[in-house]
Amino acid sequence: MNQKPLGERLALLTDLYQLTMAACYFDQEMFEEATFSLFIRKYPAQRGYFVAAGLAEALHYLETLRFTAEDLAYLATTGLFNSHFLNYLRGLRFTGKVQALPEGSIFFEDEPILEVSGPIIEAQLAETFIINAVSLQTLIATKASRAVQVAEGRPLVDFSLRRTQGSDAGLKVARASFLVGFLGTSNVLAGKLYGLPIFGTMAHSYITSFPHEIDAFRVFAHNFPTIATLLIDTYDNISGARHAVTVAKEMEARGQRLDFVRLDSGDMAAISKEVRRLLDDHGLNYVRILASGGFDEHKITRVLADGARIDAFAVGTKMGVSEDAPYFDIAYKLVRYADQPVMKLSTGKVTLVDKKQIWRTFDAQGAMGGDIIALRQEAMPEGTSLLQPVMANGRIIRPLPSLRESREYFKDQFARLPAAHRAIQDPTPYPVTLSSGLKELQSRVVQQIRHRELGES
Amino acid sequence: MNQKPLGERLALLTDLYQLTMAACYFDQEMFEEATFSLFIRKYPAQRGYFVAAGLAEALHYLETLRFTAEDLAYLATTGLFNSHFLNYLRGLRFTGKVQALPEGSIFFEDEPILEVSGPIIEAQLAETFIINAVSLQTLIATKASRAVQVAEGRPLVDFSLRRTQGSDAGLKVARASFLVGFLGTSNVLAGKLYGLPIFGTMAHSYITSFPHEIDAFRVFAHNFPTIATLLIDTYDNISGARHAVTVAKEMEARGQRLDFVRLDSGDMAAISKEVRRLLDDHGLNYVRILASGGFDEHKITRVLADGARIDAFAVGTKMGVSEDAPYFDIAYKLVRYADQPVMKLSTGKVTLVDKKQIWRTFDAQGAMGGDIIALRQEAMPEGTSLLQPVMANGRIIRPLPSLRESREYFKDQFARLPAAHRAIQDPTPYPVTLSSGLKELQSRVVQQIRHRELGES
Repeated sequence: MNQKPLGERLALLTDLYQLTMAACYFDQEMFEEATFSLFIRKYPAQRGYFVAAGLAEALHYLETLRFTAEDLAYLATTGLFNSHFLNYLRGLRFTGKVQALPEGSIFFEDEPILEVSGPIIEAQLAETFIINAVSLQTLIATKASRAVQVAEGRPLVDFSLRRTQGSDAGLKVARASFLVGFLGTSNVLAGKLYGLPIFGTMAHSYITSFPHEIDAFRVFAHNFPTIATLLIDTYDNISGARHAVTVAKEMEARGQRLDFVRLDSGDMAAISKEVRRLLDDHGLNYVRILASGGFDEHKITRVLADGARIDAFAVGTKMGVSEDAPYFDIAYKLVRYADQPVMKLSTGKVTLVDKKQIWRTFDAQGAMGGDIIALRQEAMPEGTSLLQPVMANGRIIRPLPSLRESREYFKDQFARLPAAHRAIQDPTPYPVTLSSGLKELQSRVVQQIRHRELGES
Repeated sequence: MNQKPLGERLALLTDLYQLTMAACYFDQEMFEEATFSLFIRKYPAQRGYFVAAGLAEALHYLETLRFTAEDLAYLATTGLFNSHFLNYLRGLRFTGKVQALPEGSIFFEDEPILEVSGPIIEAQLAETFIINAVSLQTLIATKASRAVQVAEGRPLVDFSLRRTQGSDAGLKVARASFLVGFLGTSNVLAGKLYGLPIFGTMAHSYITSFPHEIDAFRVFAHNFPTIATLLIDTYDNISGARHAVTVAKEMEARGQRLDFVRLDSGDMAAISKEVRRLLDDHGLNYVRILASGGFDEHKITRVLADGARIDAFAVGTKMGVSEDAPYFDIAYKLVRYADQPVMKLSTGKVTLVDKKQIWRTFDAQGAMGGDIIALRQEAMPEGTSLLQPVMANGRIIRPLPSLRESREYFKDQFARLPAAHRAIQDPTPYPVTLSSGLKELQSRVVQQIRHRELGES
């Protein structure tokens, strides 16, 4: 894209309060280390797990964060900031540390996805972008993984670009859905940027721009014999299927094979059975049926339960905006500052103090058994620790896994999550407990604050 | 941002099928004029109108659309396209026409938001981006206008950036909510790019990083006396309010005035009344109360019905993702090609043929009375035509209205929409009819297609 690095392009993509708070810290010479923890407070309806995604983007942002001369000129026009502070911003870089779950990790309510430690101005400034980036990809990876699960091995392709909430979301949805096992995307730019397989069929407009449907099919088969997918519902599914049969036979005569027919409307189970029969009756058992139109994990489940003969799904809008849960109650909270654990007590929003670690136990078969959220320094001999150091002194410590490696990691981890917790409806809550060290510190800090701020003893 | 123009950066932000279809058209030398119509098929639940937004972005894209050498090199690696076609893409520019609703227009189900006419490859290629761009801003403008309506004049500020679906959405939400009357945004980059007023308060982390809440308040008031908004719920709303009173009195002694206190959790109606009383008891009638935390049109309505003493709302996540309707059933359909009206017959998705115009009638008081969707060339003597020519030969015809002009236009138009159609729950359907010319042509084309494709007589 020949663009400036993310953190330079988007330094101002933040809430104004990040800068006013930073100015206060600067004024008070508050430069001590702060640790912020990113976590999701609550499952949305029907969610029992999350899939971590977006880490690579967050780290790229931190590594390249800087205010350009143009940014500073704009900030000067607001009249809010003095020149000392603006000059400080000019030299600001992120110099801190990050511990994080690798992309593709399974995690749960209240568990930190990542923890950022650094001088408070640097770690605070990054809040808005980090929440935004990690939240979107995690939202979509979680939603898309549910579709992968119920499709039971049938290929899924992301067709959501036109309906995603903006262009950035279009790219990230393609990436996050591939991470959890989608075969690829219709999104060409995502294909280029992330090295994803790209797929395409044809639009109804393509069919209607020809005098006859079959002409449109023939031209497509002629131009793209190796990837031909014929959309058959423009006028009528069955008549469309008959035209596809004719073209498939013509392709056979040329030594080619029609790959797919595509259904896009109507009663998918009934139509797919009829189309399957028609194809089979003509010896076209190898021609597969792709279905699109409002699919997500719920509709895939329904049509398969109805006996649909669908071999692959194009998954669009509802996955691309996470329609039944379009946001997470996600937060980036200060948990430690200047060597003191800190927290807020706001109604219903109490947070877990201090730097943490997640420990996970597995049973003899390798299945996930339960997690403990502990203080970072507590040793939990029976578990596996999940948060890993990924950044120090503002630099990524070692190359991050490739997207394909993360995809394999997700696949392996997801297979270890017992079915009851994976269920797309009424999942059983996965057991997550707090370590005794964390519980003790938590109640001690609550008491200290009540004493200090509210005069309670 | 020092970036390449939108259409150059995002030429590949499209579905692969746009390019495979284009290759077929190129192969067949199909370069005749096509017209595509962009419209929303159905109201989501509880919507009775839409607010048009995103046109400026769509036109900017069309004006600057071009494939870079890097784009073409990537397309070559897919092995799908021959060099003649890639060479054609190298020279491709959008050379067509656009008719559109001005941003800020009120429109309804099935009405075209815009119609694009041009050589079919150019007009088809733009589909994905145009839907994506117009859909998002229209979605948010529509949602945000509902909040503006129920706030009854109280200022609203967009605080959604951290939870929007990606960075592009963060910018567009700030723009679209300002278009319909929000006072401004917390989003600094949106402030810079669109000239929006920016607002900020402080985070809980800011409070918890100080030894005492009141220290945090004092430092903020000292640094930002003209825009001080003190967040009072970190430990306890009432004790926070008492600290704010102390600091407000200290500010008074310096000839300054505390602007706002901010509530962010708990029972907003009850707390706001108590905080109001406390402020008033100390002669701080001028200090206003800002509330944040899960607000959208529904929660604003509820807390005001409960008698909340809230003067301004920070509106975040639920508006920023249009939580109760996170996408539109929006489509960009071929309606005319090579001087012939065209349509598809897919179940439940029949589209209106040919180039169109919307005519609107107003009563003597200027209130909107009803719309007629007509063929472009039909004269409707009593109405006002809504779709305007905005682009010809691939260039914007005359400067588009500024965002502030569009905001005024929206305000004027929205006031003309009778309350029954604006209602945020169970709106009365606004009357939209089809002209006799459109109805006749529609049924004639349906018959022709049934005859031609399905052998019906």
